Amino acid sequence: MKVKISSILFFLLISVSVFAQIPALERVEPSFWWVGMNNPKLQLVVHGNQIASREVSLNYEGVKLVKINRVENPNYLFLDLEINSGTTPGKFEIAFTKKNAKKLSYSYELKARDKSPNRILGVTNKDFVYLIMPDRFANGDKKNDIVKGMEETSLNRDSMYYRHGGDIQGIINHLDYLQELGVTTLWLNPVLENNQPKTSYHGYAVTDNYKIDPRFGTNALYKKLVDDCHLKGMKVIKDLVHNYLGSEHWIIKDLPSKDWVHQWPTYTKSSFKDQVLFDPYAAASDKKQMTDGWFDHHMPDVNQNNEFVKNYFTQSHIWWIEYAGIDGFRLDTYAYNDPVYMAEWGKAIKAEYPRFTFFAETWVRGIPNQAFFTQGNTINRGFDTELPGVTDFQALWGINEALNGKPGWDGGVNTLYTTIASDFVYQDATRNVVFLDNHDLSRFYSVVGEDFNKYKSGIAWLLTTRGIPQLYYGTELLMKNFSNPDGLVRSDFKGGWAEDKVNMFKASGRTEKENEAFNFVKTLANYRKNNEVLQTGKLMQYVPENGIYVYFRYNADKTVMIIMNSNDKGEILTTSRFDERTAGFTQALNITSATKINSLKTLTIPAKTTLVLELQK
Amino acid sequence: MKVKISSILFFLLISVSVFAQIPALERVEPSFWWVGMNNPKLQLVVHGNQIASREVSLNYEGVKLVKINRVENPNYLFLDLEINSGTTPGKFEIAFTKKNAKKLSYSYELKARDKSPNRILGVTNKDFVYLIMPDRFANGDKKNDIVKGMEETSLNRDSMYYRHGGDIQGIINHLDYLQELGVTTLWLNPVLENNQPKTSYHGYAVTDNYKIDPRFGTNALYKKLVDDCHLKGMKVIKDLVHNYLGSEHWIIKDLPSKDWVHQWPTYTKSSFKDQVLFDPYAAASDKKQMTDGWFDHHMPDVNQNNEFVKNYFTQSHIWWIEYAGIDGFRLDTYAYNDPVYMAEWGKAIKAEYPRFTFFAETWVRGIPNQAFFTQGNTINRGFDTELPGVTDFQALWGINEALNGKPGWDGGVNTLYTTIASDFVYQDATRNVVFLDNHDLSRFYSVVGEDFNKYKSGIAWLLTTRGIPQLYYGTELLMKNFSNPDGLVRSDFKGGWAEDKVNMFKASGRTEKENEAFNFVKTLANYRKNNEVLQTGKLMQYVPENGIYVYFRYNADKTVMIIMNSNDKGEILTTSRFDERTAGFTQALNITSATKINSLKTLTIPAKTTLVLELQK
Repeated sequence: MKVKISSILFFLLISVSVFAQIPALERVEPSFWWVGMNNPKLQLVVHGNQIASREVSLNYEGVKLVKINRVENPNYLFLDLEINSGTTPGKFEIAFTKKNAKKLSYSYELKARDKSPNRILGVTNKDFVYLIMPDRFANGDKKNDIVKGMEETSLNRDSMYYRHGGDIQGIINHLDYLQELGVTTLWLNPVLENNQPKTSYHGYAVTDNYKIDPRFGTNALYKKLVDDCHLKGMKVIKDLVHNYLGSEHWIIKDLPSKDWVHQWPTYTKSSFKDQVLFDPYAAASDKKQMTDGWFDHHMPDVNQNNEFVKNYFTQSHIWWIEYAGIDGFRLDTYAYNDPVYMAEWGKAIKAEYPRFTFFAETWVRGIPNQAFFTQGNTINRGFDTELPGVTDFQALWGINEALNGKPGWDGGVNTLYTTIASDFVYQDATRNVVFLDNHDLSRFYSVVGEDFNKYKSGIAWLLTTRGIPQLYYGTELLMKNFSNPDGLVRSDFKGGWAEDKVNMFKASGRTEKENEAFNFVKTLANYRKNNEVLQTGKLMQYVPENGIYVYFRYNADKTVMIIMNSNDKGEILTTSRFDERTAGFTQALNITSATKINSLKTLTIPAKTTLVLELQK
Repeated sequence: MKVKISSILFFLLISVSVFAQIPALERVEPSFWWVGMNNPKLQLVVHGNQIASREVSLNYEGVKLVKINRVENPNYLFLDLEINSGTTPGKFEIAFTKKNAKKLSYSYELKARDKSPNRILGVTNKDFVYLIMPDRFANGDKKNDIVKGMEETSLNRDSMYYRHGGDIQGIINHLDYLQELGVTTLWLNPVLENNQPKTSYHGYAVTDNYKIDPRFGTNALYKKLVDDCHLKGMKVIKDLVHNYLGSEHWIIKDLPSKDWVHQWPTYTKSSFKDQVLFDPYAAASDKKQMTDGWFDHHMPDVNQNNEFVKNYFTQSHIWWIEYAGIDGFRLDTYAYNDPVYMAEWGKAIKAEYPRFTFFAETWVRGIPNQAFFTQGNTINRGFDTELPGVTDFQALWGINEALNGKPGWDGGVNTLYTTIASDFVYQDATRNVVFLDNHDLSRFYSVVGEDFNKYKSGIAWLLTTRGIPQLYYGTELLMKNFSNPDGLVRSDFKGGWAEDKVNMFKASGRTEKENEAFNFVKTLANYRKNNEVLQTGKLMQYVPENGIYVYFRYNADKTVMIIMNSNDKGEILTTSRFDERTAGFTQALNITSATKINSLKTLTIPAKTTLVLELQK
């Protein structure tokens, strides 16, 4: 079923005023590229007033202009280039000519690739990821708080929906804090330009695919962040949005063709129902609404069946890896994308950067629902998504239930146990990202009712279970609040602003309890960082009994026993049942308290506590 | 890890008194066989006092005694025979000789196979299965109520744990009732001998694999039931227990070898945790307890790694198919069996009877948990179970939640919808058996709080969703009660006993409401029976909106629209969203009320009601 194009909507998007404003050669994207890429093809988007009426030529050894593509909108040209592998880096002219008109020219540069071994590292279960909302973490440069000429110029730290002034320099300024905590990898919410009139702070309504938002900094500063991280042995994950662009994106305001975005007779939101993607019985209309419906009014849903759209997105992502040397991608709203394109995209990224990794947001409920998206055709679907890992929402529901639920036959710790037991549905569950909260979810400390024991139990699980652990900024300092309204979970990190009365980056600025939380995370994260057993060690878990969940991480060198007592009272655990893993060990070191346990025969576990014990002979 | 054999337990099982009692040639099983089977091999179990000390011989053209197997217990011989395909049916002597001892002899018969087309039919989604607990349905033969010499000789209809006297003749007597209801297939709880001292009524503690319990009837009467059913166009499913035998089984009382059953130092129950079967991280000890632990004190767990055990079970099942001409198996407690044996078993049954079908009880919570057991290697496990279908407990949790839960983003009808949408995890979900209750579960009418609208909604779903619908006896008459204690859901069918004051087999014996329930089931079941669209028609379902779940069954001839309104109030549904299926239709017939609906534009659905509408042009 074909939906009729809404002429009204289209008129709004390609308004006459836009035509009038753009110069004859407005921009070429990507603005530069590299020689020696695995894929010799490059498609340049050229945007300019009536640019399609011109001829194009270039002359550079090793570079061939294979095809000039013209589309509905005469303000565009899509140039297919092929770059031989031996091409010398350098600049050349791309000429746009037309009879009786002045020649237009663009100086295109092909750079040499930076092949340093210390970049584009990939993020694995050896890492510990820290998620930062850049506007809310630290303001390192007050000069970029307000950028004149941009749509949103107000700054208001008292409102959750305005910009607060946090930026990339603020993150750079606090890398030592993060390193002390044991973090190995930063994931920033998107930092590309969001030149939207409202709520631009969150970064998900991108208006320029090649430009860091000036309120966060510059492309060069972003690259410096990545370089600084690499120098400290840390990594950076870039957050990508494939599914939509900001309504103020230059390409949305002057669409190359109507089918660049999904058009609907009237505004139609996605159903956000992942089920229609795998349901063998789904109606075509339900599928269409899910993938072609819009995420929000100001986030037009791009059409990933359009070849130019595909190239435009994929190239921009490769550009950022190559330019900044980043180590991984987090893919936003994965389920709403076209699965065929996303698989092609995954293959293209892997082909270019075999060591690079990525994982996707799959905010769904149900293990088959989540596994459906993962690579390796692990469930009966006859299609490989090429997606190595997901944000493990199922494990999140599991740990929440373990800490807040009551264990019976099901429920409580049994749910967490069953969720991890279900890893047989994945090709490799160690590529999944485990977490307790993020920018969309209630803060973990609030989820557990501000129960400090439960909080520590959750942290202990996060840093000892399988997968790639991820912490949301401030969760190490007991930041709280619920996701509805969502702004509250995006509060400022105290001390990130020069005017803040409290500075939680320093121990002296924290309460005793905040320091206890910080030190609990720090101790475990650093133990994990220094002990491969918690990174890549095997996992063995036991059927929970009496509300106690026991599992082990082990390798040839070490064995760590983790005991989660979910009960409201202390328990004494007889350990003979765990012989298979405890045999040969007689004592243990409690990692978080640094105390010695002299016998393993029975272990005392306080109420609502998770012990992390390194077994010793 | 090898568990030490408990000498105490073994002593109890092979006691001296048993040795003394058995004659020199007690039994040969199977007592007869057939020529022309697909598998030429046959292994006879010979049981007799010190029989292993004898030599064995036979002489019959086409039959070869390939091997004489002796085991730990000298009271056994296992004879490997090979029967050529062209062998003539007939009898021959098997001689057991020993120097200075009188020859023992068994007259073995090889029968001709009954190749009538009207037997061994297989049970598919064209069928409607009715589950009967034979002791509780109807007493057709008072003479077999108490059988002298058996362990349990008391009859007490006032107690749920004693025998009540129901039998196979009782079922034969009421086939017309079942046919009127629209039932096509009977599934009886096991009817093999259960010569146990207590609670023998349920039939799951088998004490003779080749003999119908005399309190239910004879082998010949069981065969007559199957024949009578076939004459009426109905089918019969046999309920099999692979996992254990009754503690009073003759072979348990004189074990061929210690490893015939799983031995434990002290009595060890199964953990009943299906998770350890698929958990990539499970401990060996947890796996062992799950599959080798006992189901109950009086149900020893048989060792399915023992080759003689395997043959003994598999042959007895093939014997019953061939002897009685039954149409399908239901496999009890499937998860507790050895998966490798069960796959071998499945292949053997299919090889012998390609049209025959079977499904297994998989009483688990979780779609991956259930799909794990199904054939076709549908989830990443590298092993094919060869199990075509399962009792769809996930759909059961789904319909219960749809009727009793509250729909939000998840929950309520959304859970049912999501469960069915997850069918992509199965090779073919139409082979799954859907149900509202059974002998282990609370009665459906009680589960829905005796809400008659919800009851009818559930019935309407059962008979219109995908899969093989199964009804538990009496649910068509609003029988109620909860599964704890379980006996209450196994109450007698009123009218099944001559002395019953009420006879619910007749309309006149039922209340008005019971008749309404009966007629509701009857109408839909017969519509289903007469319209392939509800049997094999395709399914299309829509994302539920506002607590209303809409799905269609359709084929080239017919389209049936099913609308489940789970809300506490009536709703008016605009149908334009369902164009894909409603296009071309203008009116409908409400199947259950036999009323006409003259326009499809909007449909009125009363509170908590499911409409079943045959669309018309």
